[in-house]
Order: sequence, then structure tokens, then C-alpha cells
Amino acid sequence: MLIRTVFLISDQTGITAETLGHSLLTQFEGVQFREVTLPFIDTVDKAEDAVRRINLTYELEGSKPIVFCTFVQSEIREVFFDCKGLCLDFFDAFIGPLEKELEVKSSHTTGKAHGLSDSNSYSRRMEAVNYAVTSDDGLNPDGMGLAQIILVGVSRCGKTPTCLYLALQHGVFAANFPLNDDDFEAGRLPPSLVRHQAKLFGLSIDPARLQQIREERRPDSRYASARQVGYEVRAAESLFQKYNIPSMNITHTSIEEIAAKAMQIKEIKRHEWD
Amino acid sequence: MLIRTVFLISDQTGITAETLGHSLLTQFEGVQFREVTLPFIDTVDKAEDAVRRINLTYELEGSKPIVFCTFVQSEIREVFFDCKGLCLDFFDAFIGPLEKELEVKSSHTTGKAHGLSDSNSYSRRMEAVNYAVTSDDGLNPDGMGLAQIILVGVSRCGKTPTCLYLALQHGVFAANFPLNDDDFEAGRLPPSLVRHQAKLFGLSIDPARLQQIREERRPDSRYASARQVGYEVRAAESLFQKYNIPSMNITHTSIEEIAAKAMQIKEIKRHEWD
Repeated sequence: MLIRTVFLISDQTGITAETLGHSLLTQFEGVQFREVTLPFIDTVDKAEDAVRRINLTYELEGSKPIVFCTFVQSEIREVFFDCKGLCLDFFDAFIGPLEKELEVKSSHTTGKAHGLSDSNSYSRRMEAVNYAVTSDDGLNPDGMGLAQIILVGVSRCGKTPTCLYLALQHGVFAANFPLNDDDFEAGRLPPSLVRHQAKLFGLSIDPARLQQIREERRPDSRYASARQVGYEVRAAESLFQKYNIPSMNITHTSIEEIAAKAMQIKEIKRHEWD
Repeated sequence: MLIRTVFLISDQTGITAETLGHSLLTQFEGVQFREVTLPFIDTVDKAEDAVRRINLTYELEGSKPIVFCTFVQSEIREVFFDCKGLCLDFFDAFIGPLEKELEVKSSHTTGKAHGLSDSNSYSRRMEAVNYAVTSDDGLNPDGMGLAQIILVGVSRCGKTPTCLYLALQHGVFAANFPLNDDDFEAGRLPPSLVRHQAKLFGLSIDPARLQQIREERRPDSRYASARQVGYEVRAAESLFQKYNIPSMNITHTSIEEIAAKAMQIKEIKRHEWD
């Protein structure tokens, strides 16, 4: 298999360069990428070091390293003109057309790229994160009135990380509630959930995958047995049907996708830039 | 103030379009942007609806909407040729040069953009999230041996969201431990922390900002008083010095930046694509 070295470089955190680079590289199957992220390359000296490292990689490997960069400062970007990699600078490509259309010059300032430093948005996310942590795993039934969405599903189907992601990325107040044998035997949801039926969103998962996840956690347990897992998944799905709870199977889905789908289906507004 | 409508459109979650769009827009001061995210535009019908919406916005507002898009599927992208907005397609701009350099055609497949669907990386993040949740706020002193980093600082200085972000975004095992009056009066760290001194990273914050955060949480309390807040911040900073704990002031810093800086200083490898 082909192996290529990829540099993800920024005068800021490198998150934008990574997001762009990853999105593009997943489109190339059959190539393996070795990634090197260099964040905070914010002086000419650091930039020259980075260029030397890229050029050395080129000489050692005999093929051009791929370089994704997001430089806000022009004097840093200019250092990379001497670089022997394939430089894809995403600010450079798009700032020009935007300046023309908006008829405003860009400010070329760093440290603003992710909006979180904005104090309102920051507070909102912090509150949402606190809410997600205190409302995890059915811990806060009295607080569910504050939730914008309540994820329900069997143990280990991805509820907690999805709630945390919704809070951190989108400032959404998300609670979650595990469904268990008591609910399945009764064939109904607990009253504390029924009260908030409109906010419920179900997560389901293929039994084989769930078994694998549970097996890693508690090997050879009843909890991880094929029989128990199959029963729980089927019973949870019947409850979703019975109560008209929109749901999705998350087996082949990333947390980002689960969050995006759930927000779309429940019509939750994104908060990050409010 | 100028107001411009911005569409962030994708045949996937829209996260890449949002991240890149936000990074660019923060470079334009004095323009206010009204954002509309349209995720999962994955059929020609949905794409045509989106184009109609953009064109209607153009007619109503009299200026071109800015359209950031990341279309993997060419037949979707082609629908946008009729769009009256300024279309900036991140994939379109860079896929060509990459195909040429790698001598591989891109696969034009959706659903792979964020790497989380990869099952190893997914498991790693899930474990990291579980670890962060169970090791929050000093809850798991016995488990600190597993941490790659332990954030320390006064109450409400951003430890929890940073740990969760490190887990979700980077698959890093991050614990956190609050410093309180007991530690400050003793003038030393608890033994459970000293044992892991090499993993500690301190968060500090301007007293005025901390006061504001605490005031929202418990108005008019001793906890939120200028005197208490000032004392705690100074005492925490002395402990950082005494124990040689690298630290940063997070007052004007986003969670993404805190995480990136902490990883850089503690030399923690990024896990997302391992």
C-alpha cells in the first residue's frame, strides 16, 4: 500500500486544517496517510522549521508530502512558498473571492477561528456541557424539562458521547436515559419519560456490534450475551414504535452524524453562532 | 451593520462546511452573518430545493448569499451551477490537485468524512469519553494512572469541558481534579495528585471573569465573591509554580485552543487517525 506523509499546519490550533485534510483524504482509498499536525506555527522561525521538516521528508521519501494549511498571517504563508510539498492553503484559496464579494478586507487576525472565545457562545456551551454531565444516564429525571432532546436506548449504544458532543459542538441541552429490563418487561416507558415524549430520540444498534462493545467491557457476562443483547435491542425498538419515537440505527454512524441527524429530525436549531 | 446570509451545505453532516466557513467568516469584521446550515443534501431533489432557497434569498436581499459547500457527489455539486450565490466548494477546489499528486482517483463516497465511523477510532473515543465522565472532578483518584493528562485548577475554570473535548475530538484519556481551600491552606497538592505530577496541567483564569461565571451559578455567594475568587486564583497559581506544573490562562481562549495547547505542551499524540 502507498504511504504518503501529510502535514496539517496552522498558525492557530490546526483544527480547521485537520477537518479539511481529513475530509479530503478519506476520499482516497488505497493510500495510507501518515499525519503530522503542527499547530501554533505563528512566527517566521517556526514556519521555517516546518518547511525544513517538510523538505527533509520529501528528500527521504522521494514523493511530495501533502501540506494542508490555514494561515491567517500572510508573512507566515509566504515562508511556505519555498516548501517542496503540495501546499493546499485553504485561507489563501477562499479569502480573495470573499473579499471581492463582501467588499471588505479580511482582518488577518488569529485566534478567532472557532467562535468559542466569544463569551456568550462560550457560556452557552459550558451550561450545555454541565447539563449533559449532570443529566447523563437518567441521573436527573427532574431536570428533563430543560432538555432540548432526550436520547433513549439500551446500555452502550452511544447515548453519552452523543449528548456530550451535542453540548460541546452545538450548545444543545441533551439528556439521556437508558432503557433496561424493567422497561422491557413492563412493555412501557417510565412515566418520567412519557411526560417528555416529544423530546425523545431513540438510538438503536446492530446486536452483533453491541455484543462486541459489551464483551470488551464485561467479558463472558449475561450483559454481553447474544441472547440478552438481541432481546434488549428488539424490545427497545418495539418501545420506539409503540411511542412513535423517531430513531436511528447508529452501527455504522459517527457521533457527528448521529448528532446532526438527531438535530435535523427534532428540528433543533444550532447555537454556535447565535 | 452589513448583514449577509451564509449557507453551509453538505451531502453529509455539514460539519466540515461549518468549520471551514466559520474560520473564513471570522476574518471579516464589520459584517454580520446570518447562517443557515443545510446538512444531508444528498439527492438531486434536495439540492434543487436548496438552490431555490438560495436564489430566493438573493432576490429578497439584493446581494449574493455566500454558499460554503462540501459535496462529495458530483451530481449534487452540478445542481449548484445554477445557484445565484457565491459558491465556494471546498472539495472541488482541492480534490483535483490531490488526485494529480497522488495519481489516484477520489472515490466520491459519502459518510467517511469524520473518521469516527472507523471502528477502532470509535472505540478509542468511546473509552476516552467514558474515562472523562467517570474521572471528572476528582471522582476517580484510583483511576488516574490511566490518564494521559490531568487538568487541575479552581472550580469553574473550564476543566470539565476541556477533558470532554480532549476525549471526543482526540481520543485522549483526560482526568481533572479541582483545587480547593483545603489544598490552598495546606499549601500543597493532595498525595494522589503528587504521585502523577508529570501528568498535571494547570488551568488559570482572570479573577474578574471567574467571578462573573460563579455569580451566574450562585449569585451573591461567598463562592462568587471577589475576595474568595482572587484568593483561589492566586493560591492555585502558587501551587502551579511550587510543583512546576505547566499552566495557561484560559480567559480569552476557546476550548479547542486550550486542548490544542495542553496537548502540545504535554506532548500528547493525537489519536484520531491512528
